[in-house]
Amino acid sequence: MTRLEVGADSLFGIANLPYGVYSVPGQTPRVATRYGDHVVDLAVLLSNPVFAEPSLNPFMAQGHARWVEARERLRDAVAVDVPDEAVHALDDVTLHLPFEVADYVDFYASEHHAANLGRLFRPDNPDPLLPNWKHLPVGYHGRSASIVVSGTDIVRPSGQRKGPSGPVFGPAARLDIEAEIGFVVGTGNPMGTPIPAADAAEHIFGVVLFNDWSARDIQAWEYVPLGPNLGKSFASTVSPWVVPLLALDTARVAVPDQRPAVLPYLHLPEPWGLDLTLEVTWNGAVVSRPPYAAMYWSPAQMLAHLTVNGAPTRTGDLFASGTVSGPAGDEVGSFIELTWGGEFPVTVAGEERTFLEDGDEVVLRATAPGADGARIGFGECRGRILPARA
Amino acid sequence: MTRLEVGADSLFGIANLPYGVYSVPGQTPRVATRYGDHVVDLAVLLSNPVFAEPSLNPFMAQGHARWVEARERLRDAVAVDVPDEAVHALDDVTLHLPFEVADYVDFYASEHHAANLGRLFRPDNPDPLLPNWKHLPVGYHGRSASIVVSGTDIVRPSGQRKGPSGPVFGPAARLDIEAEIGFVVGTGNPMGTPIPAADAAEHIFGVVLFNDWSARDIQAWEYVPLGPNLGKSFASTVSPWVVPLLALDTARVAVPDQRPAVLPYLHLPEPWGLDLTLEVTWNGAVVSRPPYAAMYWSPAQMLAHLTVNGAPTRTGDLFASGTVSGPAGDEVGSFIELTWGGEFPVTVAGEERTFLEDGDEVVLRATAPGADGARIGFGECRGRILPARA
Repeated sequence: MTRLEVGADSLFGIANLPYGVYSVPGQTPRVATRYGDHVVDLAVLLSNPVFAEPSLNPFMAQGHARWVEARERLRDAVAVDVPDEAVHALDDVTLHLPFEVADYVDFYASEHHAANLGRLFRPDNPDPLLPNWKHLPVGYHGRSASIVVSGTDIVRPSGQRKGPSGPVFGPAARLDIEAEIGFVVGTGNPMGTPIPAADAAEHIFGVVLFNDWSARDIQAWEYVPLGPNLGKSFASTVSPWVVPLLALDTARVAVPDQRPAVLPYLHLPEPWGLDLTLEVTWNGAVVSRPPYAAMYWSPAQMLAHLTVNGAPTRTGDLFASGTVSGPAGDEVGSFIELTWGGEFPVTVAGEERTFLEDGDEVVLRATAPGADGARIGFGECRGRILPARA
Repeated sequence: MTRLEVGADSLFGIANLPYGVYSVPGQTPRVATRYGDHVVDLAVLLSNPVFAEPSLNPFMAQGHARWVEARERLRDAVAVDVPDEAVHALDDVTLHLPFEVADYVDFYASEHHAANLGRLFRPDNPDPLLPNWKHLPVGYHGRSASIVVSGTDIVRPSGQRKGPSGPVFGPAARLDIEAEIGFVVGTGNPMGTPIPAADAAEHIFGVVLFNDWSARDIQAWEYVPLGPNLGKSFASTVSPWVVPLLALDTARVAVPDQRPAVLPYLHLPEPWGLDLTLEVTWNGAVVSRPPYAAMYWSPAQMLAHLTVNGAPTRTGDLFASGTVSGPAGDEVGSFIELTWGGEFPVTVAGEERTFLEDGDEVVLRATAPGADGARIGFGECRGRILPARA
């Protein structure tokens, strides 16, 4: 038995206790928590076979009451002597995609991001926001199979883009990131029974970092009238640790004032903003710190909206916020905003950049206030660009 | 043992032999074929446990060579005496969703449909098609969880639509169908390795009928700039029988002349049009017969396009053609076309209609030429509209 040492300033202290899936050589993947820099096997620690599975889905499917109970047990169990065979050093394990993704929806919930893109793409419009934007959280479905765990290399996609006389085919020239927060549905709703915004916390299991890599040139050519497809579907990266929504009670803040008033099904009975601060690192240099608290639409509203027509959700559904951008130039969550459509290059670690070059690496991180004055971390959402395949 | 009687004019003769999933009371769902009006259990008939599973996915994942071999064995086995315990009457079984849907993409492959919608929605544009339309098969991802089997009732969705002064919430008033053909991916591609159009037949297991129910008023308000979402995500219906692509060799025809010339990755090395004739029945009256052979983009091009950026596909992926509309007024696959945006009501079984009323029922059917002069059927894709929930 071992007593685990965790520094008081750790982002993975007792206030956090996220869930992930790890493996060591010769063993199938299993569920663990991260406590400090220790990875603790939960099937061993809690003597529960639901954590011997290679994804969080079976545990998530047990429902909210079990999430609460398991978190209490876990909090007690890591604070005392733990079995040696449950403990691995973070550096000794491989981290896997923590859940099987069912349906994936990406929203567009930052007013600053939507307005920036409106100014870039529709400069002649007096209002940078389209008429529906303040009435509903605009979103679209994306490709679940393309979602990979942090550390997976990203091959530059090829595709069609607009040329001087008709489309041309080749590697994307305007490869971008979108720094987002993702929400993992633990238990869904049957077809025909919407989830009220007031019940969202019963359904949302946890929170991840999410990088929705975007090929702007492919996207710009393809997206009318049915929305983005190949400009997004080549890859999206999630962080390996799912931070329980239960750990983020302390991070709840009011959303920005929503005017005009939203329709009743989008009313929020409690604060649903989240005081997360993201950090975007490009080749080792921090280029932006997007504030999640500035997001116009909240995850409870996203879930209420996407089910209000009766659409079912399932364990493992992922919905993401869309690019997190704040009002300031160094708070934007995409490089198309950071360089204003590529017009104003930025200097990153001594080199000039507009969009991503081969070999570039982007890491997203975030922290949030946790219980008892602690800070909570989300780990890393990391990806490096490999050249397009011939 | 029994010798199965099948009429020479059956749409489910030896040339067809589709795959589905059935159950009888007290038994878990299993894979069967339909031969005439007999449902034949394949685990029993072929003594193969892969067919004792509740979906086609395990069999499909075995790959193209096995699909060929299984079809040959099946053709031999149904033509001689079969074990009595393998045989059920069609009326005695429940048919289930035949496969687990992984990712679902809906295309927009009919030039006539795209042009009709362009004329309806952008009447001032000289060209009803958008600039990208003839260069790539436009498509978007939809909700996999909402896909249901034929016979499932469709509850009228509620949602936001544009009102005289801001959006209003309520049951969709312009509820429509989209008569489509769906293609089921049997084996996919790993991330980063596109499927060439020439290899598409190795990956596409089979073909289904597909009704992409659409709430036009919800869709019209929500769809800019990221495409359709809640106007489509409440439900889509598939037929219970997956007709093997191998059964449709005889139905292959050239696609319409594609000009301007498509990019090399969209070149077709063999005829990939399909001579299917659909039939749309509204409350028992045939209102349209959309010809699939008129579709501009072929399934091989759809699959090549959706993977050309390196996006992975998986066993159980479904991609659908988009609304099948021919050039004539009685060949359209949606009611927004049939009634020209609701402007010209049609008389259906003695009643006037523009869009779907509560209690209305729509059935899609289709036939295609099969081997040896036979006709092949696809079964029914049936759905009835229930009133919106309070």
